[in-house]
Amino acid sequence: MRVNQKPYRTILLNPANRRVVQIIDQRQLPFEFIVRDIANSESMAAAIRDMQVRGAGLIGAAAGYGMYLAALEIPGGASESAMTRHLNEAGKRLKATRPTAVNLEWAVERQLAALAATPTIEGKIEVARMTALSIADEDVDYCRRIGEHGLELIAKILRRTERPVNILTHCNAGWLAFVDYGSATAPIYAAHDVGIPLHVWVDETRPRNQGARLTAWELAQHGVNHTVIADNTGGHLMQQGQVDMVITGADRVTCTGDVANKIGTYLKALAAHDNGVPFYVALPSSSFDWKKRDGALEIPIEQRGDDEVTFISGMDSDGVVREVRLTPPQSPAANFAFDVTPARLITGFITERGICPATEEGLFSLFPERRPPSG
Amino acid sequence: MRVNQKPYRTILLNPANRRVVQIIDQRQLPFEFIVRDIANSESMAAAIRDMQVRGAGLIGAAAGYGMYLAALEIPGGASESAMTRHLNEAGKRLKATRPTAVNLEWAVERQLAALAATPTIEGKIEVARMTALSIADEDVDYCRRIGEHGLELIAKILRRTERPVNILTHCNAGWLAFVDYGSATAPIYAAHDVGIPLHVWVDETRPRNQGARLTAWELAQHGVNHTVIADNTGGHLMQQGQVDMVITGADRVTCTGDVANKIGTYLKALAAHDNGVPFYVALPSSSFDWKKRDGALEIPIEQRGDDEVTFISGMDSDGVVREVRLTPPQSPAANFAFDVTPARLITGFITERGICPATEEGLFSLFPERRPPSG
Repeated sequence: MRVNQKPYRTILLNPANRRVVQIIDQRQLPFEFIVRDIANSESMAAAIRDMQVRGAGLIGAAAGYGMYLAALEIPGGASESAMTRHLNEAGKRLKATRPTAVNLEWAVERQLAALAATPTIEGKIEVARMTALSIADEDVDYCRRIGEHGLELIAKILRRTERPVNILTHCNAGWLAFVDYGSATAPIYAAHDVGIPLHVWVDETRPRNQGARLTAWELAQHGVNHTVIADNTGGHLMQQGQVDMVITGADRVTCTGDVANKIGTYLKALAAHDNGVPFYVALPSSSFDWKKRDGALEIPIEQRGDDEVTFISGMDSDGVVREVRLTPPQSPAANFAFDVTPARLITGFITERGICPATEEGLFSLFPERRPPSG
Repeated sequence: MRVNQKPYRTILLNPANRRVVQIIDQRQLPFEFIVRDIANSESMAAAIRDMQVRGAGLIGAAAGYGMYLAALEIPGGASESAMTRHLNEAGKRLKATRPTAVNLEWAVERQLAALAATPTIEGKIEVARMTALSIADEDVDYCRRIGEHGLELIAKILRRTERPVNILTHCNAGWLAFVDYGSATAPIYAAHDVGIPLHVWVDETRPRNQGARLTAWELAQHGVNHTVIADNTGGHLMQQGQVDMVITGADRVTCTGDVANKIGTYLKALAAHDNGVPFYVALPSSSFDWKKRDGALEIPIEQRGDDEVTFISGMDSDGVVREVRLTPPQSPAANFAFDVTPARLITGFITERGICPATEEGLFSLFPERRPPSG
């Protein structure tokens, strides 16, 4: 998408040195737009762990590029088993950076499978580069298609209401969370680009404020009408008929349709259900975890440092980004990063293959190859 | 309650000059504890409007004291109609400061009725002073009794679970929101004081962070175990069995049991309902609006400045309280201060007269004098 009128992806090879990966350092947004070089796989693991890059699709792409950097780091003359050990270790390190999203594991496993097929260092480097690019390109293509399918839902609401469509979103499942377009935002950008009048309620998304910092920034850059609200606000807006539809992303979805997403998603789904507002989750198929059935029991929920709750950073009146303390020093805090929204509260999934109900049967109808063999 | 081991009320007459009222400037908490003199009724209106004092009970008490200050301002030799006009105008100004809580109106009307019964300036001053003190003392007494009734509920949970009782609260319905004890916190303080082991999940309560700033501070001052969480977190905690009970306050409650309270209360009530967690609203009877039946339709919801969403203040590393911007400058924001929780989601009300179900019949059983004459 565009930043200051220039199109960007969130991750790419440095055009001047294709042994280096470039990322947007999202910790500095919306106040500074910084593109950073990542020159080795350890730095990529750190960039994922420190959330310079974040978001389901983007950390998958980052892990893919991280494995390419790891391939570049294979010592000359390494034996086949030493190469495998080196790559497995890099993969393990990348997978360990964030526990909740399934995309990390998926990207690393895909790279390892591809890498195993080539015996030479040069071959592995080339395979890893091509695989990293494929992961990124597929992410872009899947998000573009999510946009096309979701656009139909928005157009249908417009035909019924004949006024600008109000969409609420939580966290950032925007292009910054992917390589381009985003998942939850893809239908919004697609609808905006064909001239459908719309307005987005942007949940601030405490404690890391990805909505207020990232989603608001990218919608503003693209010229989409939006309003930032405290996370507490969505229920009231739905009660008052000011939300036509909710679209969120997902970090991991079970085969039964339970959704792990940013903490607070569950509360919005409850409010949507209570007010008859359609609640859609937009995601590429890489975010499905076909092996899990019960989200609340089986998906590990990341707990992050309590300083994300007790401190916040923003720009002061001199234009300096500063961190300030929000809580009494003697008060402890807790920071659960995700929650699980049960499938029963979800109207449907918007995927690259189309839209389906949030049920096992619905998912298998779109992804028949995932249906377990009957026996 | 205690501040640095010394007992305080949130509002009182200056002991050295009883023509001046003292308040705690809550905008500076938790970083500075400042007691401020309020010397005239206009300053009291400003203190309410600017939220130096806030919270249902406290703004009622502040309006009561504001009318006392207004009585002190009656020009010598004023005619009876001039006195009435002067007092009515002061009352109107006080009532206009905040639109949602019913206590303002209630306190002003009570003062006006009492003042109408005395013809002289000296009489009016004395009546206004006594009425202001009565409003404050009743508030203290009612909150103390709310604590006694609510304590029973907490003790019952302890008998069942035999482990520390986890209570979630939203916003600040603590002693800072009243004159002493608080409403939602009164059962917590009462239980803590008799040695019941408990732990409070404190919702941060964006956008003004009354939970993180005020509730956390007062619980810490009183030595009650607590943890500050982002507002998004409560649903997940309830799903995981980590909340035994929710207690919130209320700004206004209809005769059918609909509750207007801090924005986000509705979302927590939905989550409690979805997980079978008891959801209680603690309030003195002054917060009932017996004339209203449908909360979502009839209770006016205050919209405040969007700078409460786009900016936040906290303490920087040098100990200076600073304001920082949280959102991209080109992104608009909206700030709805309250929402309405329908009675069907509420387990019961904890009032100074006891506990009742959140139904019209339940309320009339505790407050039979409010039952409309049949026929």
